[in-house]
Amino acid sequence: MADKFIINEASDVCIIGSGPAGLCASVYAGRAGLKHVIYEKFPMCGGQIVNTGDVENYPGFSSVGGFELAQKFYEHAVSAGGSFRSETVKSVIKNNGIFEITSENGKTTYSKTVIAATGAKSKTLGAKGEIEFTGKGVSYCAHCDGAFYRNKTAVVVGGGDTAVSDALYLSNLCKQVIVVHRRDGFRAAKSLVDKLESKENVKIIRGFVLSEIKGDTKAESVILKRVKNNETQEFLTDGIFIAVGASPENALFKDIVKTDEAGFITANEDCITSLEGLFVAGDLRTKPLRQIVTAVSDGANAIYSAEKYLRESSKK
Amino acid sequence: MADKFIINEASDVCIIGSGPAGLCASVYAGRAGLKHVIYEKFPMCGGQIVNTGDVENYPGFSSVGGFELAQKFYEHAVSAGGSFRSETVKSVIKNNGIFEITSENGKTTYSKTVIAATGAKSKTLGAKGEIEFTGKGVSYCAHCDGAFYRNKTAVVVGGGDTAVSDALYLSNLCKQVIVVHRRDGFRAAKSLVDKLESKENVKIIRGFVLSEIKGDTKAESVILKRVKNNETQEFLTDGIFIAVGASPENALFKDIVKTDEAGFITANEDCITSLEGLFVAGDLRTKPLRQIVTAVSDGANAIYSAEKYLRESSKK
Repeated sequence: MADKFIINEASDVCIIGSGPAGLCASVYAGRAGLKHVIYEKFPMCGGQIVNTGDVENYPGFSSVGGFELAQKFYEHAVSAGGSFRSETVKSVIKNNGIFEITSENGKTTYSKTVIAATGAKSKTLGAKGEIEFTGKGVSYCAHCDGAFYRNKTAVVVGGGDTAVSDALYLSNLCKQVIVVHRRDGFRAAKSLVDKLESKENVKIIRGFVLSEIKGDTKAESVILKRVKNNETQEFLTDGIFIAVGASPENALFKDIVKTDEAGFITANEDCITSLEGLFVAGDLRTKPLRQIVTAVSDGANAIYSAEKYLRESSKK
Repeated sequence: MADKFIINEASDVCIIGSGPAGLCASVYAGRAGLKHVIYEKFPMCGGQIVNTGDVENYPGFSSVGGFELAQKFYEHAVSAGGSFRSETVKSVIKNNGIFEITSENGKTTYSKTVIAATGAKSKTLGAKGEIEFTGKGVSYCAHCDGAFYRNKTAVVVGGGDTAVSDALYLSNLCKQVIVVHRRDGFRAAKSLVDKLESKENVKIIRGFVLSEIKGDTKAESVILKRVKNNETQEFLTDGIFIAVGASPENALFKDIVKTDEAGFITANEDCITSLEGLFVAGDLRTKPLRQIVTAVSDGANAIYSAEKYLRESSKK
């Protein structure tokens, strides 16, 4: 066991990351009377929604700006009494049953449990205009933003299961869907590709990459470049959905906990990981669907599991 | 296969029950371009939250009346374009791959998938004043309402795992917790009971039932009656948490789908049940934690799974 000084000083829960999962965990921790700390490396709490235009799929808010929703989540969490630290965590180590969380400034805090809620980051193409038009026509989440392109034209970039599923999802909403894939063959399951090829409003463009997104205040067209010979073509479009994968933000945890092949931390909906006392909530967890609603659900489940762990391990 | 007329008439999704799970499913179905119907037998949509006082654990709303939150969820769902039917469903049958949903008025509608979201109902004691003071001191959910009794006194009624866990949860928040159990022995796990007995601020009263809740505008005291000889004692308290179990509202589904021993429909977080095309969302599902956040998460996951099913079964 860790020495008495450390045990007395330790918080019950340390939440790393303050997206919807981390902030909901804070609300639940506070309401459960657990002493807790939340670390966030960015100046604003809220995670990916901070940079999201409008959010229309979080029940209770028919339409709300992502930044505004992030602010509401943050204020709610603050009212739960957690201690917020605007610091980058450099390492998480479990030592004698207690977690040691060290920030870049060299300061170490102790906690009986940790909630890993650092999320995931969508991979970008690196195309010209991609960053500029993100949230203004460019999206990395068809299930979040597809409905904004009802009866419009959308371009989907990618060749995996997610890209093809996204294109099928959008084909039920959009007038036309153009799928751009740099290779001739898709990595996606054949059944999905067959389905895609059978859709009348889907056009598949193989052997091209998206090299540029053009527009004035929002995206209006894409320039596609043929991989073989750099020949270009321009297509008018309302939206561009980029589905070339996501990178889990697992740097702090990957050496101490089990992950799947892609690096997401393995856990069921109870958020219990392979390392006792470490729980994972939000996009960083292996899960079927990454959305705000599934992230807040994880926040509550992670605290529920952490509470049980604290009780059973006689730490509380 | 069902005949062509029925297939053409069928909706993609039929949601039965309009609590947070059903309403979020409607939001996601609408955004996915799925034709859907929502059935609700009560005059108000919203499920259990309609009768909840204040809700402080749904991120984004630091404090909101349950009725008001239900209204917001409902309005959000309406904007998704589903067709609401204020009717009691009498039977759900799967016939030739299509579900037949029949209301009490004898009308049958057809759907390619069904989301079972009829929820669960907390068991009541039948004590005098119990209904009158529900939401005014009487609660059936410690994790929802415990935080309202910080540094106050709470009575917990029950002897199972939930009652003992609730009492432990409350012991971290409340000044004093009084646990009332009608038997001498607890059904709860011994480790939990040992823990409970070790808590200095917990008083355990065995062999008594709660016979009456007294108060003016809110609950102020409880009358406990000794099972053996009807001797009564009065205790002052701020809150009463009744944890004597929950009944799943499974009447429509229990003969067509796998449930656990208590009658909850068996499914993982993907909400996929033993019957193809039937998905379960919210409190009716086997799950670790029943809360608004876990219900809305289910609503999204159920539609995500339903979409995949429609796609793979070539129904969409």
